[in-house]
Amino acid sequence: MKELGFVETKYFTGCEEPHGLVLKSGEKLGPITLAYETYGSLNQDKSNAILILHALTGDAHAAGKHKGDTKPGWWDIMIGPGKAFDTDKYFVICSNVIGGCKGSTGPSSINPKTGKPYGLSFPVITIQDMVSAQKLLIEHLGIEKLLSIAGGSMGGSQALQWVIQFPDMVHSAITIATNYRHNAQQIALHVVGRQAIMSDPEWRGGDYYGKTIPSRGLALARMIGHITYMSEKSMDEKFGRKRINKEKIGYDFSVDFEVENYLKYRGDSFVQRFDANAYLYLTKAVDYFDLTEKKPLNELFKDIKTKFLVITFASDWLYPSHQLKELVKALKANDVDVSDVEINSDYGHDAFLIDNPGQTHVVAHFLKRMVREK
Amino acid sequence: MKELGFVETKYFTGCEEPHGLVLKSGEKLGPITLAYETYGSLNQDKSNAILILHALTGDAHAAGKHKGDTKPGWWDIMIGPGKAFDTDKYFVICSNVIGGCKGSTGPSSINPKTGKPYGLSFPVITIQDMVSAQKLLIEHLGIEKLLSIAGGSMGGSQALQWVIQFPDMVHSAITIATNYRHNAQQIALHVVGRQAIMSDPEWRGGDYYGKTIPSRGLALARMIGHITYMSEKSMDEKFGRKRINKEKIGYDFSVDFEVENYLKYRGDSFVQRFDANAYLYLTKAVDYFDLTEKKPLNELFKDIKTKFLVITFASDWLYPSHQLKELVKALKANDVDVSDVEINSDYGHDAFLIDNPGQTHVVAHFLKRMVREK
Repeated sequence: MKELGFVETKYFTGCEEPHGLVLKSGEKLGPITLAYETYGSLNQDKSNAILILHALTGDAHAAGKHKGDTKPGWWDIMIGPGKAFDTDKYFVICSNVIGGCKGSTGPSSINPKTGKPYGLSFPVITIQDMVSAQKLLIEHLGIEKLLSIAGGSMGGSQALQWVIQFPDMVHSAITIATNYRHNAQQIALHVVGRQAIMSDPEWRGGDYYGKTIPSRGLALARMIGHITYMSEKSMDEKFGRKRINKEKIGYDFSVDFEVENYLKYRGDSFVQRFDANAYLYLTKAVDYFDLTEKKPLNELFKDIKTKFLVITFASDWLYPSHQLKELVKALKANDVDVSDVEINSDYGHDAFLIDNPGQTHVVAHFLKRMVREK
Repeated sequence: MKELGFVETKYFTGCEEPHGLVLKSGEKLGPITLAYETYGSLNQDKSNAILILHALTGDAHAAGKHKGDTKPGWWDIMIGPGKAFDTDKYFVICSNVIGGCKGSTGPSSINPKTGKPYGLSFPVITIQDMVSAQKLLIEHLGIEKLLSIAGGSMGGSQALQWVIQFPDMVHSAITIATNYRHNAQQIALHVVGRQAIMSDPEWRGGDYYGKTIPSRGLALARMIGHITYMSEKSMDEKFGRKRINKEKIGYDFSVDFEVENYLKYRGDSFVQRFDANAYLYLTKAVDYFDLTEKKPLNELFKDIKTKFLVITFASDWLYPSHQLKELVKALKANDVDVSDVEINSDYGHDAFLIDNPGQTHVVAHFLKRMVREK
């Protein structure tokens, strides 16, 4: 199979002062930078562009390899020549989000007014604000209408928000393992992650840049998150009750079970690649996400022409399938073209990131239909 | 309805030095104290005794009220005159566990050898050790055979361990919302709780007695636990997306959602009533629990005459029903008298602590049959 080869992250900057990007909260943020990558070529009538939206801790590097890297981008299983998002046919864009720490403007960025990192003086960001910024990028790329937008988890929230906010710019939307509003359990799980960070004395009210970082709190937040991304079954198959040292019965509180070792490893390595404040801002953005804040679900899709593919996974207990049944019902009630697919996978919420013939097939098929029926 | 009235916690002390209680690890612990309460009267042939075993953070005070208290014990809905564990008929004993902090010997107890609290020098405790200590209490009370033993969650683990360890002393066992071995997800959730405590600088390797306690870590551990004790549905019905201040869009990281406020409250109040080291020891004991450590499930029950009632709850995702199906299968394969009941309740794992006519009915009926068929 052909490969994408080496790719590079690009940067778009806009909303310079004094205007800035007007956020949902009313605050203005500017200038803003968005990290993004593109794969494949935009066709002459600019009708083959697909926007990929990443999950909570993802980044713009969705596919191919950066020079010197051994691992490809986070959705390389889905994006490339001959893959579901076929770069021989489509111009695929992956945009990072504002509020994060992966090259776009976020709490660790330098505040031009002070010359210091924003920290908690960075404004609270919503999914709506992320989409507002991405829209500027899409316009900057000269694209008036996207063939499709696609994302899992927080990426799925962005996709839904895109449809509501800029319906005329989105021909079709693929939402995966997500919810149209964060519910109490989903909020609660984020709350403990944030609490873990803010309970770490090194957090210092968010003002830790250039000092010791709140690594214990951030690692803990990631450990909690990671449990929710797997399923009971996948955890049991991968780790069961296996011990690191089988001879030991357990006389102390050092790392003992393999699952413990794995979670600690995931927590510690996360600290190397993610900013604690960004974790606070992004989880908060997801918690505030509620598509039905102003209108009930049924009224939201009255004049929507966007076609939908809604994918859920049977073992995903963080965003269980039944939550999206309501969305699908509302779409159907408004005569929106919607395909909904529950995929059998034991991998829980993270199933969308793992090679899955079912997901590949369904997405590839949906996109082909979008081109054919246009 | 008649009430139990005022009750008192009693204390049993045994295993004085130089013998001590021999633990599973081979270490000796002595002397040991067990806190316990009793309700109702032991009949003449001592055949009406039922032992109640509590969950992770429970205590000996299962029913009735202590003088001055407004709230009754943790299972007052189930224990009392005319209730499922009918104190007009049965002599009900509730025993605390060693390793905890509710009046029995645990890491916050004074080590007689040093005159200081044990802290982490306290030996690691297993469910087997808890049961070994409880057996001494039952003998001390002059009871040769218990009519029944009953417990939910960690109490259920103790009940199962009782049957395997002292089969001739247990006529019947009621296990509720539990597992015959802790699986990877259950261990993982405990791991993050322990990690939260041990990451708190105030924990100081367990040597915090008389100093500031690791309250932030312990509160976090409880918040994580509490999410797992509820169900997605019960959380959504209780809190949904409700905000403390409805006008606020969210410009900072203060407590915002009602579910957040509730979890913080639960975490903070837990710190007032529980010892951080005890939380480490008890969760570790549960994680080490594996009835199949030495023999497969099918062989464990070969000569068991104990009759079983196995209760699970449909919305309990921490100890889902399917895990106990294997236990029930193994019991049936060995011709053990077993009734298994999955109760429909939206309250998740904590359903067994909440008034539930289904549970009351099933337990009352089972106990009556135990007396009748004896």
